[in-house]
Amino acid sequence: MADKPEVLASRTIAQSRLFEIQEVDLRFPNGVEVQFEKLMNRGFGAVLVVPVIAADRVLLVREYAAGVDRYEISLPKGRVEPGEDLLHAADRELKEEVGHGARRLQRVAGLSIAPGYLGHLTEIVLARDLYRSSLPGDEPEPPGVVEWSLADLPALLAREDCTEARTFAALYIVRDLLANEEIADR
Amino acid sequence: MADKPEVLASRTIAQSRLFEIQEVDLRFPNGVEVQFEKLMNRGFGAVLVVPVIAADRVLLVREYAAGVDRYEISLPKGRVEPGEDLLHAADRELKEEVGHGARRLQRVAGLSIAPGYLGHLTEIVLARDLYRSSLPGDEPEPPGVVEWSLADLPALLAREDCTEARTFAALYIVRDLLANEEIADR
Repeated sequence: MADKPEVLASRTIAQSRLFEIQEVDLRFPNGVEVQFEKLMNRGFGAVLVVPVIAADRVLLVREYAAGVDRYEISLPKGRVEPGEDLLHAADRELKEEVGHGARRLQRVAGLSIAPGYLGHLTEIVLARDLYRSSLPGDEPEPPGVVEWSLADLPALLAREDCTEARTFAALYIVRDLLANEEIADR
Repeated sequence: MADKPEVLASRTIAQSRLFEIQEVDLRFPNGVEVQFEKLMNRGFGAVLVVPVIAADRVLLVREYAAGVDRYEISLPKGRVEPGEDLLHAADRELKEEVGHGARRLQRVAGLSIAPGYLGHLTEIVLARDLYRSSLPGDEPEPPGVVEWSLADLPALLAREDCTEARTFAALYIVRDLLANEEIADR
């Protein structure tokens, strides 16, 4: 298991504005040959921001999600622009989506969403010391902003309009991180 | 924001064995018209299982992930077969991937992975009272099994080969759930 499968060949079999589907021929270390399909990511990565406005309160956005065809609540997120620094992208997305900038930004994790067939990686950024500041976004309508307590994640999970795995992973990670800081500060 | 965008038209623009890319014309409640791309999910959904073998220990699998082209550690998961019950699918995946069946299975959440462009939903199932039992899987090589403690999620997050958002969301959700049960049992 030390070696990884060898890529014998790969080709683009379908392409659209957003997506590129590749077919990959692989030979596993045990000699088994298989063909996998994967989706290539376009662009320079994505950032998902956990904006903490008070001790344990965070800002979420509510916007239409085309994949599931309903309004969804999630943490603010977006693409990193070419040449853009990760923390700058996080700050920009915050200004566009929740009307706040942040004076303290810190990367806390990098998460994949479906590593079996997507190369996509999302950087999770904790944002603190917020202040009001807006930038125009590219959304068809302005996102709604929802305030939530990190002490009440089970109630968020019980909502039918809040389902994104990255959002929950990031909220739990940040809740733990802030709780540990509090212990260290005592 | 009470209404959701109206779907004016949708068409398949690319298709492969696994994926179908659709283009959707939408009119938002404010009159703005946009075109979105989304990936349609094939099949009957997916299940991700949290197999708890001792008080706070879980079984993870290590297998090659084509999307990120490396071996990844994650919770066992797989597709639900046509006509298959969700909990049965969870039990089957456990037997195929970690060589255990479970006497207690419980759905704890439904998570999406990228609701903006994927319809995909994964049901999270907590599995307890495990016993040894194997079924042949369809993987090119048998997955490795890794045991981990729920008390040590930060160390798992720090690993470069464990990144999946659903895995972390599910582990934190179950850790909280088990901790609350323990409090209730006192």
